[in-house]
Amino acid sequence: MSLTRLRQLISEKKAPIAVGLDPMESVLPPSLLAEPDRAAAVLRFCEEIIDSVAKLVPAVKPQSAYFEQLGPVGQAVQYAVCRYAQSKGLYVILDAKRGDIGTTAEAYAEAFLGSEYFADSITVNPYLGTDGITPFVKLAKESDKSVFALVKTSNASSSELQDLITDGGTPVYMKLAERLATSYPADTLGFVAGATQASQLRELRAKFPETFFLIPGYGAQGGTASDIALAKDANGGGYIVNSSRGIIGAWKKAGTPENYGKAAREAVLAMKRDLA
Amino acid sequence: MSLTRLRQLISEKKAPIAVGLDPMESVLPPSLLAEPDRAAAVLRFCEEIIDSVAKLVPAVKPQSAYFEQLGPVGQAVQYAVCRYAQSKGLYVILDAKRGDIGTTAEAYAEAFLGSEYFADSITVNPYLGTDGITPFVKLAKESDKSVFALVKTSNASSSELQDLITDGGTPVYMKLAERLATSYPADTLGFVAGATQASQLRELRAKFPETFFLIPGYGAQGGTASDIALAKDANGGGYIVNSSRGIIGAWKKAGTPENYGKAAREAVLAMKRDLA
Repeated sequence: MSLTRLRQLISEKKAPIAVGLDPMESVLPPSLLAEPDRAAAVLRFCEEIIDSVAKLVPAVKPQSAYFEQLGPVGQAVQYAVCRYAQSKGLYVILDAKRGDIGTTAEAYAEAFLGSEYFADSITVNPYLGTDGITPFVKLAKESDKSVFALVKTSNASSSELQDLITDGGTPVYMKLAERLATSYPADTLGFVAGATQASQLRELRAKFPETFFLIPGYGAQGGTASDIALAKDANGGGYIVNSSRGIIGAWKKAGTPENYGKAAREAVLAMKRDLA
Repeated sequence: MSLTRLRQLISEKKAPIAVGLDPMESVLPPSLLAEPDRAAAVLRFCEEIIDSVAKLVPAVKPQSAYFEQLGPVGQAVQYAVCRYAQSKGLYVILDAKRGDIGTTAEAYAEAFLGSEYFADSITVNPYLGTDGITPFVKLAKESDKSVFALVKTSNASSSELQDLITDGGTPVYMKLAERLATSYPADTLGFVAGATQASQLRELRAKFPETFFLIPGYGAQGGTASDIALAKDANGGGYIVNSSRGIIGAWKKAGTPENYGKAAREAVLAMKRDLA
């Protein structure tokens, strides 16, 4: 499922939304927190969220860190969650932000996009240059999957390195974006561009009309629907917005810990209205 | 075990060498390749390498990708290898190149440096800025462990982003190094600086006399002992050189697949002589 397939799913579901599966301790309801087997509790939580949102959204974005934090069993839980989401027709963007070179990057690509396993897409870190990205794009192309490279992230300190101005007057993230856009096909490699960086989002869209954007930073981090509107392509699409805590932790605001799935579904519907 | 502890181990073993545990298919001898359980074969291979080099070197550097490539059981094998190396008195630098922000970076730090688990150090990617590094350094400081940030990598395309010249005339990697050196203590955060970048290694040492360097790129990638000598601090130390295939795949050159441990040990001794 390349980015073309993701675009289709977005248009079928009429929702440019990826539900972030970040099963950190603070979003687990008390009943699951009380279970002796944390890995089993995390798996159950993710499955319930997936069941609750699968009909409404095109994609989920599991965050590797919260699975790896479970210890030796973490990777197995991560795979189980990816498989389950795919069995429900969801496009799985594994947010692993891997970045290495040559045979090592090939091994990471194989680990997460290889035929035996089940992410449809993976996020990658571009600091090592195209050596670190090409093996992912190559495998993604062969298997109709996709890759998202970090370009402009949504966090406060993203400016430290990404916004350094180069001697030609262009910031680092834009130099990177130019190289990525000329090196890889737009239907396989997308950009991660944060909703908290509105002017940069506008500029990226202006320069890369064909590129697909994965947009973190909506909600909790401060990005709004009008910031996100700046990312729309000529057809009003070309992007997907991630929300994690705002959806999977919605039960906290609703005060319904035992109905965390229902609270997640309602949060998705509210987000859909907000974005539209 | 902070970097102070690593410095002590280097001086006890008289070898600034980390053995890279990159158990890719091409370094497994035929007898292990033939085993039906690849994960068990990888574990056995790493244990034999560890047994063979533990008395000679201060550290090993397991490369996460080759463990994750084993599938759902990969993380468990990775932990087992880290524990085994530590039981033999080795300092374990997990080459995971993680990079994320806030609570996610905390989760990664907990996964690999948390008290239950057993890496002494982890490599991190700086593209997201200090938000992405601080949680690792904080946990490392609390637990007498350490962190290595990618500064200048050893691969061919490392120049694409890392060597961009900023408007003040300083390259990106050096701006990054300046920020890292002023933000974090030198006994907790070291730099990854490749042996293939001799002039940059010299420049980094001149500007950061107190910083500890982890140096990849020796041997197979083209870095020589005289390149590495440029990284020495005023006391002739302050660095550790990683070699992976040159050691764990030494049996191929020696033509002794059933004595891959012995071949690794001899390759370490030869590397020790070459560096001295």
